[in-house]
Amino acid sequence: MTIRVLLLGFGSVGRNFCRLLEKQEALLEKEERILLAGLATRGRGSLWSDDGIPVSSLLEAERQTGRVDALSLAGCKKGLPALDMVREGEFDILAECTSGNLKAMESEPGFSHIRAAFERKKPVVTTNKAVAALRFEDIEILSSQAGVPWHFDGTVVVGAPFLDYARRTIVDARILGFEGTLSATCNYVLDCLMEGASLDQALMDAQRSGMAESDPALDIDGWDSAAKLMIVAKALMGMPCPALGEFPVKGIRGLTRAVLAEARRSGGKIRLLARITRSAGGIDLSVGPEVLLPSHPLSLLFGPTNGAVILTENLGEICLSGTGSSPAQAAFALWQDIRRIARGEKR
Amino acid sequence: MTIRVLLLGFGSVGRNFCRLLEKQEALLEKEERILLAGLATRGRGSLWSDDGIPVSSLLEAERQTGRVDALSLAGCKKGLPALDMVREGEFDILAECTSGNLKAMESEPGFSHIRAAFERKKPVVTTNKAVAALRFEDIEILSSQAGVPWHFDGTVVVGAPFLDYARRTIVDARILGFEGTLSATCNYVLDCLMEGASLDQALMDAQRSGMAESDPALDIDGWDSAAKLMIVAKALMGMPCPALGEFPVKGIRGLTRAVLAEARRSGGKIRLLARITRSAGGIDLSVGPEVLLPSHPLSLLFGPTNGAVILTENLGEICLSGTGSSPAQAAFALWQDIRRIARGEKR
Repeated sequence: MTIRVLLLGFGSVGRNFCRLLEKQEALLEKEERILLAGLATRGRGSLWSDDGIPVSSLLEAERQTGRVDALSLAGCKKGLPALDMVREGEFDILAECTSGNLKAMESEPGFSHIRAAFERKKPVVTTNKAVAALRFEDIEILSSQAGVPWHFDGTVVVGAPFLDYARRTIVDARILGFEGTLSATCNYVLDCLMEGASLDQALMDAQRSGMAESDPALDIDGWDSAAKLMIVAKALMGMPCPALGEFPVKGIRGLTRAVLAEARRSGGKIRLLARITRSAGGIDLSVGPEVLLPSHPLSLLFGPTNGAVILTENLGEICLSGTGSSPAQAAFALWQDIRRIARGEKR
Repeated sequence: MTIRVLLLGFGSVGRNFCRLLEKQEALLEKEERILLAGLATRGRGSLWSDDGIPVSSLLEAERQTGRVDALSLAGCKKGLPALDMVREGEFDILAECTSGNLKAMESEPGFSHIRAAFERKKPVVTTNKAVAALRFEDIEILSSQAGVPWHFDGTVVVGAPFLDYARRTIVDARILGFEGTLSATCNYVLDCLMEGASLDQALMDAQRSGMAESDPALDIDGWDSAAKLMIVAKALMGMPCPALGEFPVKGIRGLTRAVLAEARRSGGKIRLLARITRSAGGIDLSVGPEVLLPSHPLSLLFGPTNGAVILTENLGEICLSGTGSSPAQAAFALWQDIRRIARGEKR
């Protein structure tokens, strides 16, 4: 079986996804194949090939020229707009990897891409946090109307994927609450602060290591964690979730020396904690820095390691953690989501 | 849809499974139902009812009399041998919860029950570690010949189920190795030893709390962990696994004061570590006490908490942990395995 993928967006996740496609033979059965049918970017061209785009040549051409349409390929089409590809191209799964703008509450162009895919009953996988957080309910409705799934494990804790785990492996455990450290950048920066560095120093280190974005404000001010927390809540809690702006979100800018000293004294760690609790009316969300005592499972994670604690009625507390949040891991989430659709799993 | 379950063995896991059946309405869709069709024990009677055994009355009768056939129930059959039920009863799934004897390398009567179920193409779920560890390959063959699955998530780290996770959620991650603390009793005892208790004291505490078996030798001498490790290896590594006796198994009896002092000095913990590594010829297994430094994810787990670190090629290290290893959690694993079969998942 050949799965034809249309990839929109070609940042580091897209590039890493192509690297997985390069080595797909090692991962798939003989008769299986995942083929890149089309690729569109905002400002670096687009490419469509009915026979599939050769990913190694694509990566090399893009590396040399900065454009995806620099690849010379017989019979391919260049310059098609992303939305035209979604509406008319022959593909099986849409991989939506553009980036929205969480600060501006902007979910375009991702949402239009996804809606257009569902209009043609094409399943969707995405790493686009802004779209998943801001338009979750809309996408659920469109997905259900179309009768095809969407998967978004690439939006949250890609180093230790747990959405599929929580919704399938332990589906009847009845989730009561959730605590997570969802920003590798914040984990890293907080450990530096604990060691005496200034926020600016710590951020510069994080950027140099390639972990933090060039504008790390989304991470530092808690909005990135808030978006991820909303995705977790909407995916797992089965209850109406407050919108961005309707629950407390505090970042890690204003931490005083006194707070840091207290954390050191307690033997614990400071973490930007994203939390879901059940309340009488439904669920409450919050994001903010907390001193975690050594007995808290998430106090135990080092450096960029992200983690999630799922509190359940039938199994108690389950903790999952994994190192980092790299584009390669996000690309692998896309891969797994595609494979899940190919296996015919509904979700 | 009604799923008719035949339950063999009625220890604390079986009892807890019945408690889950009692509250099944809260967990299932309206048209779904899981019904206990038959129940057989070695020395406390057996019971079969075409209409389903009322589990609350059963639990009460067994509590009062110590026998499952003390329940008075119109139209039921009493005294049928377990194997006859498997061969002739009308059921959909066999839940094999008898206990084998790992010390004696004895996998009966569990294995005969499972074989008989597969002869009738009935899927199997089990919490029987001895059978799963000792007869894994045989059962795989029978399962595949019958074209029906068997599930055994109830045999390993039931507080943080990870077999289904590793085989499904992250199926393409390519597992390179594994480390786990698989015995809650050993974790608990080792923490007591670190605090200065004697082995006898620690064991008595563990027994009083209901955690340790009345004969805790299997745990303390490492054989329980070894059996679980074999199940993990056979389920996840896809390579021939050494038999019990063919890989090093060391327990926690002989720990000297010097070793304990060293562990304390390092700031880490002593754990009975079960490990799988890849070697040139395939995989190597080992079980033995180790001082885990504070940077090791499993050094961070407290008391009875069990944990598993899965080392993968595509995602790095993923750590799962959950509190304890209770019969209620094992019963919940049975429940989830049954639900998985009902959903039509092959594995």
